Amino acid sequence: GEFAKIDCDRELRTGFPEVIWGQGKTPEQITQIMQMMREKNPVVMATRINPDVYSLLQPKVRGLQYYELARICAISPQKIEPKYYGTISIISAGTADLPIAEEAAVTAELCGFKVQRLWDVGVAGIHRLLNNRHVIESASVLIVVAGMEGALPSVVAGLADCPVIAVPTSIGYGASFGGLAPLLTMLNSCAAGIGVVNIDNGFGAAVLAGQILRT
Amino acid sequence: GEFAKIDCDRELRTGFPEVIWGQGKTPEQITQIMQMMREKNPVVMATRINPDVYSLLQPKVRGLQYYELARICAISPQKIEPKYYGTISIISAGTADLPIAEEAAVTAELCGFKVQRLWDVGVAGIHRLLNNRHVIESASVLIVVAGMEGALPSVVAGLADCPVIAVPTSIGYGASFGGLAPLLTMLNSCAAGIGVVNIDNGFGAAVLAGQILRT
Amino acid sequence: GEFAKIDCDRELRTGFPEVIWGQGKTPEQITQIMQMMREKNPVVMATRINPDVYSLLQPKVRGLQYYELARICAISPQKIEPKYYGTISIISAGTADLPIAEEAAVTAELCGFKVQRLWDVGVAGIHRLLNNRHVIESASVLIVVAGMEGALPSVVAGLADCPVIAVPTSIGYGASFGGLAPLLTMLNSCAAGIGVVNIDNGFGAAVLAGQILRT
Amino acid sequence: GEFAKIDCDRELRTGFPEVIWGQGKTPEQITQIMQMMREKNPVVMATRINPDVYSLLQPKVRGLQYYELARICAISPQKIEPKYYGTISIISAGTADLPIAEEAAVTAELCGFKVQRLWDVGVAGIHRLLNNRHVIESASVLIVVAGMEGALPSVVAGLADCPVIAVPTSIGYGASFGGLAPLLTMLNSCAAGIGVVNIDNGFGAAVLAGQILRT
Amino acid sequence: GEFAKIDCDRELRTGFPEVIWGQGKTPEQITQIMQMMREKNPVVMATRINPDVYSLLQPKVRGLQYYELARICAISPQKIEPKYYGTISIISAGTADLPIAEEAAVTAELCGFKVQRLWDVGVAGIHRLLNNRHVIESASVLIVVAGMEGALPSVVAGLADCPVIAVPTSIGYGASFGGLAPLLTMLNSCAAGIGVVNIDNGFGAAVLAGQILRT
Amino acid sequence: GEFAKIDCDRELRTGFPEVIWGQGKTPEQITQIMQMMREKNPVVMATRINPDVYSLLQPKVRGLQYYELARICAISPQKIEPKYYGTISIISAGTADLPIAEEAAVTAELCGFKVQRLWDVGVAGIHRLLNNRHVIESASVLIVVAGMEGALPSVVAGLADCPVIAVPTSIGYGASFGGLAPLLTMLNSCAAGIGVVNIDNGFGAAVLAGQILRT
Amino acid sequence: GEFAKIDCDRELRTGFPEVIWGQGKTPEQITQIMQMMREKNPVVMATRINPDVYSLLQPKVRGLQYYELARICAISPQKIEPKYYGTISIISAGTADLPIAEEAAVTAELCGFKVQRLWDVGVAGIHRLLNNRHVIESASVLIVVAGMEGALPSVVAGLADCPVIAVPTSIGYGASFGGLAPLLTMLNSCAAGIGVVNIDNGFGAAVLAGQILRT
Amino acid sequence: GEFAKIDCDRELRTGFPEVIWGQGKTPEQITQIMQMMREKNPVVMATRINPDVYSLLQPKVRGLQYYELARICAISPQKIEPKYYGTISIISAGTADLPIAEEAAVTAELCGFKVQRLWDVGVAGIHRLLNNRHVIESASVLIVVAGMEGALPSVVAGLADCPVIAVPTSIGYGASFGGLAPLLTMLNSCAAGIGVVNIDNGFGAAVLAGQILRT
Ligand SMILES: Nc1ncnc2c1ncn2[C@@H]1O[C@H](COP(=O)(O)O)[C@@H](O)[C@H]1O
Ligand SMILES: Nc1ncnc2c1ncn2[C@@H]1O[C@H](COP(=O)(O)O)[C@@H](O)[C@H]1O
Ligand SMILES: Nc1ncnc2c1ncn2[C@@H]1O[C@H](COP(=O)(O)O)[C@@H](O)[C@H]1O
Ligand SMILES: Nc1ncnc2c1ncn2[C@@H]1O[C@H](COP(=O)(O)O)[C@@H](O)[C@H]1O
Ligand SMILES: [Mg+2]
Ligand SMILES: [Mg+2]
Ligand SMILES: [Mg+2]
Ligand SMILES: [Mg+2]
Ligand SMILES: [Mg+2]
Ligand SMILES: [Mg+2]
Ligand SMILES: [Mg+2]
Ligand SMILES: [Mg+2]
Repeated sequence: GEFAKIDCDRELRTGFPEVIWGQGKTPEQITQIMQMMREKNPVVMATRINPDVYSLLQPKVRGLQYYELARICAISPQKIEPKYYGTISIISAGTADLPIAEEAAVTAELCGFKVQRLWDVGVAGIHRLLNNRHVIESASVLIVVAGMEGALPSVVAGLADCPVIAVPTSIGYGASFGGLAPLLTMLNSCAAGIGVVNIDNGFGAAVLAGQILRT
Repeated sequence: GEFAKIDCDRELRTGFPEVIWGQGKTPEQITQIMQMMREKNPVVMATRINPDVYSLLQPKVRGLQYYELARICAISPQKIEPKYYGTISIISAGTADLPIAEEAAVTAELCGFKVQRLWDVGVAGIHRLLNNRHVIESASVLIVVAGMEGALPSVVAGLADCPVIAVPTSIGYGASFGGLAPLLTMLNSCAAGIGVVNIDNGFGAAVLAGQILRT
Repeated sequence: GEFAKIDCDRELRTGFPEVIWGQGKTPEQITQIMQMMREKNPVVMATRINPDVYSLLQPKVRGLQYYELARICAISPQKIEPKYYGTISIISAGTADLPIAEEAAVTAELCGFKVQRLWDVGVAGIHRLLNNRHVIESASVLIVVAGMEGALPSVVAGLADCPVIAVPTSIGYGASFGGLAPLLTMLNSCAAGIGVVNIDNGFGAAVLAGQILRT
Repeated sequence: GEFAKIDCDRELRTGFPEVIWGQGKTPEQITQIMQMMREKNPVVMATRINPDVYSLLQPKVRGLQYYELARICAISPQKIEPKYYGTISIISAGTADLPIAEEAAVTAELCGFKVQRLWDVGVAGIHRLLNNRHVIESASVLIVVAGMEGALPSVVAGLADCPVIAVPTSIGYGASFGGLAPLLTMLNSCAAGIGVVNIDNGFGAAVLAGQILRT
Repeated sequence: GEFAKIDCDRELRTGFPEVIWGQGKTPEQITQIMQMMREKNPVVMATRINPDVYSLLQPKVRGLQYYELARICAISPQKIEPKYYGTISIISAGTADLPIAEEAAVTAELCGFKVQRLWDVGVAGIHRLLNNRHVIESASVLIVVAGMEGALPSVVAGLADCPVIAVPTSIGYGASFGGLAPLLTMLNSCAAGIGVVNIDNGFGAAVLAGQILRT
Repeated sequence: GEFAKIDCDRELRTGFPEVIWGQGKTPEQITQIMQMMREKNPVVMATRINPDVYSLLQPKVRGLQYYELARICAISPQKIEPKYYGTISIISAGTADLPIAEEAAVTAELCGFKVQRLWDVGVAGIHRLLNNRHVIESASVLIVVAGMEGALPSVVAGLADCPVIAVPTSIGYGASFGGLAPLLTMLNSCAAGIGVVNIDNGFGAAVLAGQILRT
Repeated sequence: GEFAKIDCDRELRTGFPEVIWGQGKTPEQITQIMQMMREKNPVVMATRINPDVYSLLQPKVRGLQYYELARICAISPQKIEPKYYGTISIISAGTADLPIAEEAAVTAELCGFKVQRLWDVGVAGIHRLLNNRHVIESASVLIVVAGMEGALPSVVAGLADCPVIAVPTSIGYGASFGGLAPLLTMLNSCAAGIGVVNIDNGFGAAVLAGQILRT
Repeated sequence: GEFAKIDCDRELRTGFPEVIWGQGKTPEQITQIMQMMREKNPVVMATRINPDVYSLLQPKVRGLQYYELARICAISPQKIEPKYYGTISIISAGTADLPIAEEAAVTAELCGFKVQRLWDVGVAGIHRLLNNRHVIESASVLIVVAGMEGALPSVVAGLADCPVIAVPTSIGYGASFGGLAPLLTMLNSCAAGIGVVNIDNGFGAAVLAGQILRT
């Protein structure tokens, strides 16, 4: 058995190329998969790449760039122009949620979408959000990232007239139970029109947002 | 072993009389305990009394009143004047949370506190809350009752400068898991200064609010 | 406190009118809210209405219709023409998931969207799905409803080039734990581009689909 | 997006300044936030700061003090006099609960409250508590910190006539499940008048106690 | 396959006869098993027998007695004298725990042990327990039954110099999760020397107490 | 959408015909599916059929038989001869596990396999099992059904030299949590060579046993 | 007490020799057990051996081989010929599942079975599986290994006419909860004929497959 | 507040001296508590002491001994003679359970009890236990230690006519969930007369066994 079967026409089929999930793969495996994919894809990217893994990949993969906060590395053209119409607004509740929010932002940008960022506007100081309503109003689709109690997507969805994607994070402690608390919060939201992704899955949120904009 | 040991000087010791928890007791047991307590206490009350239980108690216990929405029955003076200074504002997220919110309100009133009610102002339509900020601002202590995702206490605590007591309810379905979702939300709130009570425990919230006002 | 604060301009704000959640409300409360809402809204609908509740509402609310399988009742024009461009394809895994799939379908239709239904194509007989790929291909957005192991959305998302909304149901037994199993399956999907809603929340899936089509 | 939006008038709004949650922030982020906050606040504090993080902050932030047991660092006047009337008594069940109990104590003192400490009086030797009833009796508000089975708040609340704030800790092993056991114990207490905060949340308990004393 | 294999020499092997677990058996099965067992055993007993099941069994099984509160029915001699030395003291926290406490008491008495009962002495009014220390001091072995937060066994074990058996009950609501809360409390007790049995398992507690006295 | 897509060539594809899962289907749906299937299949069966549902089906479906203990109804030839070589031995731990054990037994017999039954040989009286070792030794494949602590499959697998299929049941109470306890027991068995099916899934166990014998 | 009782005639009794579970044993203990077992067994193997443990064992145990990906070390003949008829096909969903899939493969080969491998054919690109149907069709028994949402066994079982053994892995993050998600998926599969083993238990799957082929 | 309140007359009150729980205490705290306790107690012991902590304590505490496998250190007389009548037999299921089994054994010996050890007799090879029935038969009280599926106490209790104390361990992986699986197994045992202690609580089991022998 070969260790990886690259799903080469995933882009044709689903509109998005396969992206390498870095977690649980050896640097050798990641290198080989990247080399195989670069033939066919203008952009090749891998998520969940820690700095020490990047430093092993960098000498072996020509032209590899690293987005440290987002833990993403990618082979891509110098400058990526948005290919699609519309804006993905990404809103995060706290400073500690940034890595996940950036995973979403960088993924979306690498896939050709325009992104607008709004960080640290959690519900405990609701005026911070209300003072930035233009970010909600100018969005074509919203990604809302929150840990701890994860209440932000409910409030945003009540103000927005576009689809809302909620990303619970594992930021928190105690009864957060690794992100279970904000996950349940988002699933039980009394505001309708919210789609939830896995805990810390900034990547998946970006792909869903992209699919929506391509619709 | 006698089946119940009434804690007669609880009021002396803790400032609040013992209150009968109706759940899991037979109507006979409730009747007997009420008769024993009425000797020593101006107000005798029992919580978690369903209408069919009340109709069994009513003929046996002289002067018993029933607060149907709150599922409380009580022997009490005709009119109860507030005995303590300050206002307990009780805020609920949805219409379906009313029984628990009323359990808190009636308990507080029977114990001699002034209560202000604000119902159905959940976070999915945040303007409903913002339009009623006077209820928050005029409160000495706040009780916030919410089911589903339970996000309301976080928003309220960010606006209030008094203690907030959060009551998760079992209202919801699916991943609410009987109120676990709002319970976790409230425990993980990024707004500090919130004390949480058990799921559906309107009674306990009122007692805690009362203790705070007596301080 | 009045028992319900109807969020009258929710449609203006979010594009969708408030919908009455029938669970946990008395028939009297539902009747009153419907009467208040019918003034301002062309379509008034309530979800989670069991047949016995409907038979209490029907004599009091003029022109009330009942969608039994979906457990929805509504006041609406005789014939509802799609108001928006695009098709929502709704796919269910098993016969027992029908009530939830229909909740999504009827909600979407009442809100002015065109719906295509495909029932009972669970993954244990994958040819049933593969033989109906046109339903996937002609969709603008997909709602996939599944109980038991909830694997269908992963397979569908791998074939689709539009957004996929996954609805776990409480259909199953034993280690399904009330729908927890398919919920976790859908959240952990290795196919990106899936947004998950609460267990049995056909309504929420329809609203999210609608938001996507309005984008 | 700037990485942090400091909630500068939180003190005006809620009576307490924003406090930096050190967990999940880089030392650079903490330094920058502290510098921004020191302009406007007489006391600036950060919780969850481990010794190695402190040693990175100390050279960069002038006048920074460290409370090692409490894992708090703060910029504050030489001597902090109590600003408010009343005493917060903090009681802990075991020696291993000390870091959380001290987080509560130091937070309260930095915020201007008078604190009384009573350590290691768990219920397995109830005489240790009964011999110190004066600590309970002289309190205006009580914070009770306990891990393992977390039974102490129930006993204390039965003896106290002031509000009780219960803090479950993650101290324990096996079926403690990271503090779930004492959390559930405290939520289910048969003694009314207890407000529970998150596992290991000494900080939140102190803020709630402060809010109560300000009432 | 015959539907039941009675373990006739269990008494010889383990010191206790097999006892019929009534739950999940049809009245016909219970009747047949009782008839088979009465040949060989002086006392035949079945637990978890609701009143309606008893009324079906009573006409078919000669000499059957019913202990309603304990939900036990038994064929036994008119008067059962204690066969073993020592006293089993059974202590319960609340009135609602009585059925389980009585299941323990009646089982122990039918098996030939002397029982002392002390009901409704939960930790929220600790003086009720302290005023009855003679019940603890005169016990050879203690069974402590508690629902809600289940803190009583910890306090009792700190005062007792004999083995303590803890029985969590499903009495409670919300975050009790069907008795999970007191179960975890008892397992995590900081007082050593406690053996825990299943939720609501008064029967098992009595058998363990009996084994201890027979040692 | 038609409500059911019968997987007619499942037998060709997998060796077993589709079987109707009665739970969550209306009697009308079951009737219609049975009528469609009887054209093509010599044996048509439905599981999870309660007596009241059977009495509704019986007048509508010609030749329908009912296996009450197993809750199965079937259209089948008068007498079913084993079609395959080998014996499926089914062993149950307690009397209350019978309905699930019979679900497995009847399914296997209707599918053409020879079945041997051994009931009520749980591990608390291990001699009952050891006295029946011939049932283990003469088996080609074993199905072991147990609730409560679910320990029986481990012991059986240590004695058997054939595959063991373990079926946890929901029989038990308290910390059984609806069958979670025996499920975890079986998954963690220190005896290798055990395949586990869902809680109460006697049907699935029989199909797996059948697949093994057909190998 | 001697620290290990080797079950020497397990092979006689169950058809498979005891295998050493390396986790939780010191290298000294593993060495001693291997030396004792090599007398009586042609093949001696230990699972869950990390590279650093192997490097400690290797100098002490003559002829010890290491299968790094599978984390297995073994004393075995140079070349192992299949001893039994039939093929075990092992299919994995993702590259990260390889260590568990290889644990199954190497165990089966060391025990004398013929193995066919098919890696990285998860359901998100279903054509990868459908293009390799010959692997399913030529199998005598199937082992399907999957993490994340664990949907692959359901699809495979719907295509296969032989027994399917499902192995959930701990590969994933967030709501995977250490493999709970794919475990529940596999237990709730709507495809019958699947036996599930513990999370990451490639070893157990191989033993069960072997038992089936020996039938 | 002083950091520790030693419960000096615990021995008088409960028959056992306080024992230091090493986890979560600094070496300095442990040293100080030991020095304070050695004045009044012939034996001073601390549990959960890792080798590196011991090497810090050893130079500071005169006469300190270390029981490495049990992770206990103690100040005690050269040779400890049993002070009490009767034998505690300790039985473990697997080699990896030894640290917990030894924690129980060493605690019991230091407290003056006679101990008999039987290791590695798990239920997958039941003959290992049956061949050692004399260990069960000669016991006054039994401690049974098991991880993984934790089935051993059920089998032992069915053979023993003395009290059985069951100790679940965290040994296992996957669906063991840190010892939850054997804990549930033991609580749900169909064999009556078993008292369960916390996961990995060998210490608590020994104290309970001691209490039983002192009865
Ligand atoms: N079946 C449903 N599931 C989830 N949310 C619903 C459902 N039906 C209505 N809703 C939402 O519930 C809210 C009304 O809640 P309430 O104020 O309790 O009637 C509305 O805003 C709807 O968006
Ligand atoms: N130890 C703590 N536990 C819980 N919340 C805290 C803690 N320390 C600070 N906070 C709160 O966390 C919020 C800051 O979060 P952030 O924006 O991520 O720094 C502040 O509003 C504080 O009220
Ligand atoms: N990776 C594994 N997972 C589960 N069980 C195993 C594994 N490797 C070996 N075993 C089983 O563990 C038992 C040995 O346990 P022990 O006595 O602790 O070495 C053997 O009977 C094997 O059947
Ligand atoms: N390994 C252990 N597991 C559980 N409890 C223990 C253990 N070792 C000591 N203890 C108990 O822990 C208590 C001491 O807790 P602490 O005051 O934190 O030292 C003593 O009363 C002992 O009975
Ligand atoms: Mg912030
Ligand atoms: Mg509402
Ligand atoms: Mg179907
Ligand atoms: Mg202590
Ligand atoms: Mg009481
Ligand atoms: Mg039986
Ligand atoms: Mg792959
Ligand atoms: Mg072993």
